Amino acid sequence: MSLDRTVQKPIDALAAYLVGDMDAVNTLIRTRMASEHAPRIPEVTAHLVEAGGKRLRPMLTLAAARMLGYQGEHHVRLAATVEFIHTATLLHDDVVDESAQRRGRPTANLLWDNKSSVLVGDYLFSRSFQLMVETGSLRVLDILSNASATIAEGEVLQLSAAQDLRTDEGIYMKVIRGKTAALFSAATEVGGVIAGAPEEQVKALFTYGDALGIAFQIVDDLLDYGGTSSVIGKNTGDDFRERKLTMPVIKAVAQASAEERDFWRRVIEKGDQRDGDLEHAMSLMARHGTMEATREEALRWAAEAKTALDALPAHDLRDMLRDLADYVVARVK
Amino acid sequence: MSLDRTVQKPIDALAAYLVGDMDAVNTLIRTRMASEHAPRIPEVTAHLVEAGGKRLRPMLTLAAARMLGYQGEHHVRLAATVEFIHTATLLHDDVVDESAQRRGRPTANLLWDNKSSVLVGDYLFSRSFQLMVETGSLRVLDILSNASATIAEGEVLQLSAAQDLRTDEGIYMKVIRGKTAALFSAATEVGGVIAGAPEEQVKALFTYGDALGIAFQIVDDLLDYGGTSSVIGKNTGDDFRERKLTMPVIKAVAQASAEERDFWRRVIEKGDQRDGDLEHAMSLMARHGTMEATREEALRWAAEAKTALDALPAHDLRDMLRDLADYVVARVK
Repeated sequence: MSLDRTVQKPIDALAAYLVGDMDAVNTLIRTRMASEHAPRIPEVTAHLVEAGGKRLRPMLTLAAARMLGYQGEHHVRLAATVEFIHTATLLHDDVVDESAQRRGRPTANLLWDNKSSVLVGDYLFSRSFQLMVETGSLRVLDILSNASATIAEGEVLQLSAAQDLRTDEGIYMKVIRGKTAALFSAATEVGGVIAGAPEEQVKALFTYGDALGIAFQIVDDLLDYGGTSSVIGKNTGDDFRERKLTMPVIKAVAQASAEERDFWRRVIEKGDQRDGDLEHAMSLMARHGTMEATREEALRWAAEAKTALDALPAHDLRDMLRDLADYVVARVK
Repeated sequence: MSLDRTVQKPIDALAAYLVGDMDAVNTLIRTRMASEHAPRIPEVTAHLVEAGGKRLRPMLTLAAARMLGYQGEHHVRLAATVEFIHTATLLHDDVVDESAQRRGRPTANLLWDNKSSVLVGDYLFSRSFQLMVETGSLRVLDILSNASATIAEGEVLQLSAAQDLRTDEGIYMKVIRGKTAALFSAATEVGGVIAGAPEEQVKALFTYGDALGIAFQIVDDLLDYGGTSSVIGKNTGDDFRERKLTMPVIKAVAQASAEERDFWRRVIEKGDQRDGDLEHAMSLMARHGTMEATREEALRWAAEAKTALDALPAHDLRDMLRDLADYVVARVK
């Protein structure tokens, strides 16, 4: 099946190519969300799972497995696993961030409460774990259990790094590898593992997912200062108000004059934020060119993702994954 | 090694018998709590893990494996797994219950915050998952992933059953099987599985853990209305204030006169609680003999736990587990 990639967004091209598998994933997700004993669970999760997420992560697993000729059914279980882990993380993030909106809709923790978000997240995480066990692959279990630990570590690190001007790019990279890239790379890697691909191809899939995830998160952090609410359902400056140190700010702090440093100390460390501070922060980032420098880092990671694909056999899906890497960074052109 | 069980509490006798294994478990727990990237993690968990918990659940795993002649090292991993799952559950419970105290000390969510409790709980859960994977036993993974899902379902069910006078003993049993018995039964069952015990012995271990866990939770719920703060680090009436329907209340509601029903509706459903209401609730439970009836149910489950042990070979540890079942219910003599 060949698709005209020039008229479709890469994510839509992937969705069209993988439509049969994605239908199976969606059916499995709905079945496994259900709880005989606790009917509130699908209420909470349906809200998130049906909320128009792009299902990027499960598609990565399906694409990796199919590209390498996998003909079984475990890739569907693994794709659902990955989406469940992602959804569980979102539910817990909403509690942690005290978010009021996600994807332009009120978050579950406002509609229901923090309690449901915590417990239903736990439920989805357990469900994901059951799905992996059903594949019978200890290697897959190893990869996904390590990814889960890395995700949790990244989130804790983000918490302690927030409001701390000493947070540098090294810490930032650990945070985004944890909060984002770990699940991307596990998603692609397990697709290769379940397909029985040779080690060098599995490694290439890991590298692709890791680099794509990093590019994706850097762009997300950039959009937080430059995107519009309609693009990501988030308001500009959320990270600023939450005093998170993301790449454009870290780069601006590193180049700050003494006076600028006082500003950053007040708004980020002390949390004393006033009208006009966000605009001033953005003018400082513009002065030091940190938005542009951050965008260049994202482009570099997208290029690394594409290079990793060279180790994989030629395939329509490989082309789509290459386009996807471009698309992820095109959001900040 | 034989111990004089008449002078020791059964839990201390178990701890003495299993001291070498428990040292290994404690060392493993400390090692795996550590996070290279996020040093805050051991700060949060040490608070809980060192807080004088009795380590009952990991001892059940060790006892089951040793009783059946296991000579390997995976039982230590599984015992640490069980304790990590338990600790993760406690951390998330503290967020859910908005608790201020656990085991007589301030809870982690007050000392740090809800965010750390959620994320560090996730981290411990992921760590537990890594430990299980290291045993290489898919059956163990199956048992523990199912137990995790049952725990989460039980917690969600408890949330929706609270403040609802329609909660009956059937729902209550599902809740306590989830929140408590599922981990007890998984703890004993995986001990048998890792020891390679015959199916009927594995089944007996499951039944023992399930019945022990149920007896344990019924007693805990009873102590919430009759115990003293020094015994469990909880204040009498916590469940009442949180409007949880536990067995003594459910039995009292089932036998309530029209006037009594109005009282229960006000304090549990509407949450309109005034001075003297706890005392009045306890007088209603006394009037209908529901504390005594609840205690009898606990004794019945303890007896069932002991009966299950008959299917296991004679062993000092088997005797200690039998004494443990008596001890659990002796807390409400």
